[in-house]
Amino acid sequence: MVLNWNVVARTLGGLLLFLSVALLMPALVGGLYNEPAAWSFLVSAAIAVTIGGVSWYTLGTPGREDVGAREGFAIVALSWIVLSLIGALPFVLGGVLDSYTNAFFETMSGFTTTGATIFGGSGTPSIESMPNAFLFWRSLAHWLGGMGIIVLTLAILPILGVGGMQLFKAEVPGPSADKLTPRVRETARRLWLIYVGITVVEILALLPAMSLFDAVNHAFATMATGGFSTENGSVGQYDSAYIDGVITLFMFLAGMNFALHFRMLRGKAITVFKDEELHVYAGITLAATTLIAMATWSPTAGWFAADAIGTVYSTLGEAIRYASFQSVAIITTTGFGTADYEIWPSLAVGTIFLLFFIGGMAGSTGGGVKVVRHVLLVKNSLKEVKQLVHPQAILPIRLNNSVVPKDVMGNVLSFIVLYLGLLFAGTLVMAALGLDLMSAFGAALSCIGNIGPAFGTMGPTENYAHVPALGKWVLSFLMVAGRLEIYTILILFAPTFWRR
Amino acid sequence: MVLNWNVVARTLGGLLLFLSVALLMPALVGGLYNEPAAWSFLVSAAIAVTIGGVSWYTLGTPGREDVGAREGFAIVALSWIVLSLIGALPFVLGGVLDSYTNAFFETMSGFTTTGATIFGGSGTPSIESMPNAFLFWRSLAHWLGGMGIIVLTLAILPILGVGGMQLFKAEVPGPSADKLTPRVRETARRLWLIYVGITVVEILALLPAMSLFDAVNHAFATMATGGFSTENGSVGQYDSAYIDGVITLFMFLAGMNFALHFRMLRGKAITVFKDEELHVYAGITLAATTLIAMATWSPTAGWFAADAIGTVYSTLGEAIRYASFQSVAIITTTGFGTADYEIWPSLAVGTIFLLFFIGGMAGSTGGGVKVVRHVLLVKNSLKEVKQLVHPQAILPIRLNNSVVPKDVMGNVLSFIVLYLGLLFAGTLVMAALGLDLMSAFGAALSCIGNIGPAFGTMGPTENYAHVPALGKWVLSFLMVAGRLEIYTILILFAPTFWRR
Repeated sequence: MVLNWNVVARTLGGLLLFLSVALLMPALVGGLYNEPAAWSFLVSAAIAVTIGGVSWYTLGTPGREDVGAREGFAIVALSWIVLSLIGALPFVLGGVLDSYTNAFFETMSGFTTTGATIFGGSGTPSIESMPNAFLFWRSLAHWLGGMGIIVLTLAILPILGVGGMQLFKAEVPGPSADKLTPRVRETARRLWLIYVGITVVEILALLPAMSLFDAVNHAFATMATGGFSTENGSVGQYDSAYIDGVITLFMFLAGMNFALHFRMLRGKAITVFKDEELHVYAGITLAATTLIAMATWSPTAGWFAADAIGTVYSTLGEAIRYASFQSVAIITTTGFGTADYEIWPSLAVGTIFLLFFIGGMAGSTGGGVKVVRHVLLVKNSLKEVKQLVHPQAILPIRLNNSVVPKDVMGNVLSFIVLYLGLLFAGTLVMAALGLDLMSAFGAALSCIGNIGPAFGTMGPTENYAHVPALGKWVLSFLMVAGRLEIYTILILFAPTFWRR
Repeated sequence: MVLNWNVVARTLGGLLLFLSVALLMPALVGGLYNEPAAWSFLVSAAIAVTIGGVSWYTLGTPGREDVGAREGFAIVALSWIVLSLIGALPFVLGGVLDSYTNAFFETMSGFTTTGATIFGGSGTPSIESMPNAFLFWRSLAHWLGGMGIIVLTLAILPILGVGGMQLFKAEVPGPSADKLTPRVRETARRLWLIYVGITVVEILALLPAMSLFDAVNHAFATMATGGFSTENGSVGQYDSAYIDGVITLFMFLAGMNFALHFRMLRGKAITVFKDEELHVYAGITLAATTLIAMATWSPTAGWFAADAIGTVYSTLGEAIRYASFQSVAIITTTGFGTADYEIWPSLAVGTIFLLFFIGGMAGSTGGGVKVVRHVLLVKNSLKEVKQLVHPQAILPIRLNNSVVPKDVMGNVLSFIVLYLGLLFAGTLVMAALGLDLMSAFGAALSCIGNIGPAFGTMGPTENYAHVPALGKWVLSFLMVAGRLEIYTILILFAPTFWRR
């Protein structure tokens, strides 16, 4: 078997047709606000519909036997790249950005739900100065990317056997063969309904405190765990405890496995509350919030580092508000900001740093390593210690009372190695481009984890505008690799993938 | 079975008797240099011989059946701790240090071959101001620690099944049963002869350029991949290309698997040169040297980060000299310094940072993760990618043409997780003590990897004196955990270890 390019090109064409419809929405928003630059979305939609239409309608309908795992991988890996290549056009055509690199970086950051932005830097416009059509396009890219990733991780990747994903399959009627069957569509439809439903609820919840436009944009960015805001100062600009609270809650929900939301709706609340990954996800969030609140609340901040402490809060309420928002924003990989965590006391900065390595739950829109992988890794390590004492004992690893197959463990463990390998390689490239070590490591870590803000010159109050062009392409690669569970991208570099 | 404390206490007693003999050597050195403080070594030796003698002679000789894996673990884990507790006494008794915490930190840093020092800070004497007896004791602690670790990793840990150590067993007549047999002694004797032999050669090689005292101390610290120097400015203080070259070579040799040195002496050079781990060890060293030399040689430094670059060298010779020394010093976890790598251009700093995660070869005196683990991890990850394309294929992992058992892989992989877990936990504690993130992370990384210098306030020109007392105990714990391949220490915290 060799890769069936026909099938791949046709499917990507279909996605471009879908993209062309999506591009009409910001055009509509631009029209409503009388923004002339909105025509660039119509032109981009025309380009997308032309390329997409040609490949969709001229390439024949593939037979079932033509769609195998190989084609699945190629489609998944290329879809994010192709959508970003075309989705970046409006920024350049509309004259908002004069560099296609910047436009591509921003769009990839959108579709991968990263939220790293090049706006607001030297040579790029500030976020507030942009036409609403473009602000909406950024949020919409997030939202569509998040929608795509739920289906990908809950329905498609498990079939492809990526990174132990078979464990996280949605408990909805799913496909069991190794072909992409119509049942995937049914799974997708139900998950999307939930996704749309929660988004609508968040919009309604935000409406009392912000305009409809802002509410829609922030709800899109929240549910996708993206992080693009319509304000230079992110969510912090509103300075509203109510908004902070609502967004904290919905970020947390977006970082949950959507299969759990589905089960909840079916009335299986008990199985949801018994989910081990959920316990750990909630536990880490709570522990991080507590640590950060202790480190930043003035009466307790002195317990740590009496000498030189950073920004602290005088009331416990404030400390908890900012600690919980920032903890949830980072663990879910959303990356919204209400506080500059870099100038917090060291313990709080350290806690945030560790959260960069966690990520959301599997099956959520969150990126990063994912909580379940940490759970399995810790269980495996504890098992190995136990095994040393009882060399003959058979000690299976269980998750939610099911034994985890050894293959899945090997898969998860190698995921970590590839993740760290890419992280370190990315760090080295960024350092070679002249970024200081902390900024280089932070940027690579933030992009592969689809978080957004990082440390140093890409901290929560900074942006990525100053990164050299090569660096932006490398970071874009890290974003898509991280978003697609590493394997899906790396497999394209395996000679065996291309061989007969 | 429950732990046989009798056997453990008796063996530790024996080690203390050995320690008391070792303590006589710095006393002798002090005598030669007419240093009054040398009496503190005699007192410490008397304490060691008393405690050791009581437990060795009053506890009866154990039967063979009393010495199992459980006792092996307890002895290994406690030996480094007990030796450091007693070995720290001379510093306090001799009035060199007024804090037992500092004395313990320094001694643990010695025996674990870390080389992190508290001397030269505020409140601690400078290294040059210390009596020679104490300088010699620091080096001797390194050298004995290195000697111990070779035997531990090549003879004892493989029997205990730690971290896939069965792979790295010395190719000398070794024990095959699961009890510690007299054959371990034969293995130990041969490896020690090689260790002593190379040390003597290095002393002779250094003699043309430094005093006998300095040569002995630096040879001890080199062969143990320790890093304590008799100069505040470390090896850089001599400013001699000859010394730099000699020490670079011997650090590289000390970072090699001593089983390879053994095979070399038996004339099996071909199997040595075919060793896969050696290829990767040499390859990484060469690649790092090249990258750093390019980043620090003025004609090429501009290729990276035209704007703001750090210290660069005008001649290629200088660039290679400092790049190779610092690369080898970090990968072997020695930690000697001839240049302040923190003020190098960013690419060079980034390269050094990555070397912090590598470590020496298994079976060397070097600490860290070890090259062979990286080799296996990368092979496993590549296998997993290949497996996705060929889900049915059976793809064994091979090392030096032998198939690596799956259990060993699981062991290695969980080692990484525990290593990173301790690293991150250590980072958090150090941050809670008020160190900035970079310093906190660097110190934890440096100590668990037995390297010595770190980043930030514990950079290559700084020291650990300013770390709060609790931090020094935590870092000491990381040193011994890293030195003893993590498992050996963590197993003591496993409830199952203490249960019948």
